Amino acid sequence: MAEGPTVRALGEFGLLRRLRAKSPPLPPEVLVGMGDDAAIMQPSPGLALVATVDVLVEGKDFRWEWCPAEAVGHKGLTVSLSDVGAMGAIPKYALVALGLPARTPVKRVDGIYRGIWGAAEAAGVAVVGGDLSEASRLILGVTVIGEGEAHHLVRRSGAKVGETIWVTGPLGRAAAGLCALKAGYRVERSAVKGRRGTRIPPKARKALRGTMQAQLYPMARYREGRVLAETGIATAMIDLSDGLASDLTRLVEESGVGARILADRIPVDRSTRQVAELVGLDSVRLALGGGEDFELLFTSGASSTTVEEALVRKGFARPHAVGEMRAADEGLTLVGPRGKEQPLGKGFEHFR
Amino acid sequence: MAEGPTVRALGEFGLLRRLRAKSPPLPPEVLVGMGDDAAIMQPSPGLALVATVDVLVEGKDFRWEWCPAEAVGHKGLTVSLSDVGAMGAIPKYALVALGLPARTPVKRVDGIYRGIWGAAEAAGVAVVGGDLSEASRLILGVTVIGEGEAHHLVRRSGAKVGETIWVTGPLGRAAAGLCALKAGYRVERSAVKGRRGTRIPPKARKALRGTMQAQLYPMARYREGRVLAETGIATAMIDLSDGLASDLTRLVEESGVGARILADRIPVDRSTRQVAELVGLDSVRLALGGGEDFELLFTSGASSTTVEEALVRKGFARPHAVGEMRAADEGLTLVGPRGKEQPLGKGFEHFR
Repeated sequence: MAEGPTVRALGEFGLLRRLRAKSPPLPPEVLVGMGDDAAIMQPSPGLALVATVDVLVEGKDFRWEWCPAEAVGHKGLTVSLSDVGAMGAIPKYALVALGLPARTPVKRVDGIYRGIWGAAEAAGVAVVGGDLSEASRLILGVTVIGEGEAHHLVRRSGAKVGETIWVTGPLGRAAAGLCALKAGYRVERSAVKGRRGTRIPPKARKALRGTMQAQLYPMARYREGRVLAETGIATAMIDLSDGLASDLTRLVEESGVGARILADRIPVDRSTRQVAELVGLDSVRLALGGGEDFELLFTSGASSTTVEEALVRKGFARPHAVGEMRAADEGLTLVGPRGKEQPLGKGFEHFR
Repeated sequence: MAEGPTVRALGEFGLLRRLRAKSPPLPPEVLVGMGDDAAIMQPSPGLALVATVDVLVEGKDFRWEWCPAEAVGHKGLTVSLSDVGAMGAIPKYALVALGLPARTPVKRVDGIYRGIWGAAEAAGVAVVGGDLSEASRLILGVTVIGEGEAHHLVRRSGAKVGETIWVTGPLGRAAAGLCALKAGYRVERSAVKGRRGTRIPPKARKALRGTMQAQLYPMARYREGRVLAETGIATAMIDLSDGLASDLTRLVEESGVGARILADRIPVDRSTRQVAELVGLDSVRLALGGGEDFELLFTSGASSTTVEEALVRKGFARPHAVGEMRAADEGLTLVGPRGKEQPLGKGFEHFR
């Protein structure tokens, strides 16, 4: 851990001044940013507002032993960006609530904010305000406010029987990365390390790096979400934060339908398979139950070509059809490679 | 502490379902509330957006030994309402980030939400979303989004030399209440109790009850803030959350001016004086240094009559002139009853 002054030495107001001085410039639609009672923004005429909040807690959502401060900030913003993206809205503004122990080095706070600002800049999001308070462990809650045409925004509740279920990218990568981190692997400045004495097969290095980066620096698919909303292709959409099984359950419940997932259609990339093998886990299980991929899951009645073309034409990855919406009484099933059906299990849930 | 099932027994999704079922009805401008990736709201055409977040932490901002769950929820919303009110905006929407230990009784969560919903309903605010996560101690972060005409909203930076400094109500009440709670006094269903064997003077009961209620169930002055903004009376405004000395320091820094406060003009009500005497503290010190009154501090170049009439005519309490904005090089001074000047000290600051 970096040394230097702590948050206690600087105090709340000193820390606020420091952050304000380092804050990137704000776009013209932000009339007042940090430093007043509240931020003031000029919304785009005619657009609806979209707002969400998501929280990361030290020890639950990440561990300092493997998570750089910058990754905490990056991920803190990304989880909320992802929710706004899953509505098909354009993320615009963020507010950051940060609780910290007084012994936290100021450098760590700088790192967290570098991560937040970096992810925000990449998404065209202005960090317009926040709150600092003392907490026994780090807790980071980020509110993201976005905009979009009310008639384009995509809810969880619009899926219809017979529609195809799609995901925007490979699943299980972030879960594989988490397993690698828990098994003692680390990625430091692109170099991959294992526990002392661990021999890392050369072929596995790239897979370990890729999956650990996917866990530490996930990408939110708000640009893809926007395309799927504007084109009217997605009838229902959710971001995969808790895992395919858990998040599909919520979409199905909101839409009042059932669903069938084909196990051999679930996109699992080579890195995920390699890491799963290295740590002795089943890669399809990681894809089904592991969360934090932040790919979008959506349903559509459009043809495969239409759906694929809409994303590919805009430079995004080809999406994957993984199943079909069914009648509610069929429930939520997983069809194995040999046609055997079983109920789809549940993914991550807090407090359990 | 109330018994019954814990948050662990119910799980995150069970708790979410429970809260969603109990959630009050939403106004028509909320197109999607809880239960999707994000909320969708239809903003009022032509108005600017105002947004803020504020966090309460168990052990820092309140203690369970004296704070009912409902008061935690009430206060969690109020601190953010107060910030939106200090811009002169109309509070409209809230998002609630709640971190809890898994052992928390569900009844306690119900109480917190009763407090949030009660304060929200009174303010015409719709709770449109939130996030539940596991934390070692309770932490409650509330984002409030409001609206207002951009040209009416009042910043901290608009105060000019020569303008009068006003506060909307008596100060030190919440601080006196906090001292009473720390001294072992309690208010339970309007009955006031002290530590075993404490004799409470009959005259002090009302004062104890009033100040403890002010600490536990503070009121945000967003309605007064709105009047002061719409009429153009307030040139700069801030809510008194950290205490007169601290909050005035921030307003003065943002406005690039100095200020003189007259000690004998600071409104301290009888209850505060009585409780201060009971617990052996100076009531003016409580008014200067104690926070959480959530009265508004504002500056105005308008005549006393104009300022007072604007609020009184709308049914609000008569505001109090407490000092004057001075040139920046005069700094921030407190003039004692015998004309003696001294630098105004600082109030509460996190991490210190």
